[in-house]
Amino acid sequence: MDYAFRLDFKVRDYECDIQGIVNNGVYLNYLEHARHEYLLASGVDFAALAKNSINLVVTRAELDYKTPLRSGDGFWVGLNARQSTTLRFEFLQHIYRSCDGRLVLKAVITGTSINERGRPFVSEEISGLFQRK
Amino acid sequence: MDYAFRLDFKVRDYECDIQGIVNNGVYLNYLEHARHEYLLASGVDFAALAKNSINLVVTRAELDYKTPLRSGDGFWVGLNARQSTTLRFEFLQHIYRSCDGRLVLKAVITGTSINERGRPFVSEEISGLFQRK
Amino acid sequence: MDYAFRLDFKVRDYECDIQGIVNNGVYLNYLEHARHEYLLASGVDFAALAKNSINLVVTRAELDYKTPLRSGDGFWVGLNARQSTTLRFEFLQHIYRSCDGRLVLKAVITGTSINERGRPFVSEEISGLFQRK
Amino acid sequence: MDYAFRLDFKVRDYECDIQGIVNNGVYLNYLEHARHEYLLASGVDFAALAKNSINLVVTRAELDYKTPLRSGDGFWVGLNARQSTTLRFEFLQHIYRSCDGRLVLKAVITGTSINERGRPFVSEEISGLFQRK
Repeated sequence: MDYAFRLDFKVRDYECDIQGIVNNGVYLNYLEHARHEYLLASGVDFAALAKNSINLVVTRAELDYKTPLRSGDGFWVGLNARQSTTLRFEFLQHIYRSCDGRLVLKAVITGTSINERGRPFVSEEISGLFQRK
Repeated sequence: MDYAFRLDFKVRDYECDIQGIVNNGVYLNYLEHARHEYLLASGVDFAALAKNSINLVVTRAELDYKTPLRSGDGFWVGLNARQSTTLRFEFLQHIYRSCDGRLVLKAVITGTSINERGRPFVSEEISGLFQRK
Repeated sequence: MDYAFRLDFKVRDYECDIQGIVNNGVYLNYLEHARHEYLLASGVDFAALAKNSINLVVTRAELDYKTPLRSGDGFWVGLNARQSTTLRFEFLQHIYRSCDGRLVLKAVITGTSINERGRPFVSEEISGLFQRK
Repeated sequence: MDYAFRLDFKVRDYECDIQGIVNNGVYLNYLEHARHEYLLASGVDFAALAKNSINLVVTRAELDYKTPLRSGDGFWVGLNARQSTTLRFEFLQHIYRSCDGRLVLKAVITGTSINERGRPFVSEEISGLFQRK
């Protein structure tokens, strides 16, 4: 599969739990970091937006866990993005283990952009980003 | 809605991110803790099982974010569980803000139980738990 | 020992690492939550201050780990606070395991208060809090 | 200053808190990851040891916070290690911001190695590592 963006990671031991595998909640951290790096590379700065009270928020996450990551594993996140409705963006994100290319996780993350009063607000730079897809 | 189990929480400030709201990944922590407390109350000890190489793992998570939690918010997790297939358990988990009962998040978490070799293995105590539903 | 404030906790499984014990970094989370709850109970709201660009920050942490916490452990944090210099506050924080009162961790956390430009700034409410000790 | 090991990082947004800076507890995560990567590069595998019930544990941490890291910051951890007593190892760890080399944090982390029964136990590979310094 082709991805618009990919980012390399390595498991950190504090991310693993009693079972010796990466805790299920940590994958949302990996996915968020990959999304924000993608946005940054596309000229959209999550933190700068937050400072101006434009908040990109997740409205829905669907995660399919296929193979657990373990201590020492390298992995990468592949990402594609599209505007699904006027006010919603959809990120398709896949995680692969580096050593053998095995699929680790498939996710669909839906987000929107809201202003200070919690109302949907899609700024020009965000809209431009997704229209380019 | 009636729940088989509920657990009270309070937001901790380190769980909030730049946007001043609980980070989207933290909700999976809340949900896991509620599931493990439910299992423990039902006689199934996640940590003791892990020590014996019986691992309860999440295979799918579906999260719908409705209202963000913020610093100072109390909230509670309501949980219902059922065996969805021979080898899969399904947890329906809802989070509500305590001050006004507002729905914060709806989740369906699917899990299974695997043995040392990564094969599906449903022990008697786990099977008994879900059959009682 | 007498404490000005104490707060009860229970270990959550996602806080434990490969070794089956609470990860060393998580204790700083416990200590922060106890400090913020203490401050809140004393009329100082960390999050509200942050919104007004008054930031309470940690400048030094000394942690002595005595006994590791494990899955299922209840524990409590005892806290005493004092103003150590004009611009510094010191929190003495001890963690005890609930089941047997065993000392888990001793910490001294030093903090200060800074304004928007990163300069030390001790507001009246903060100063009042510590002078009362 | 010369370091026996250094590791590059980039701040991830979920590591930042309400104040828009990396939360004080997260630095212990960075430091742990740097130590484990150093140990691995030196032939000591933390996770493999844990599986064999040889646990490397932190007994004391001293952290001096100098400059907060923020969203987007690159940084690196420099590390030196020495055996401080027969049973204790000491890691001197400094964090620097990449863009301007500014000192972010200074830490001294003391650790020991314990066996299944919680008794101090320094295996040959660990002892060899520190004696080489």
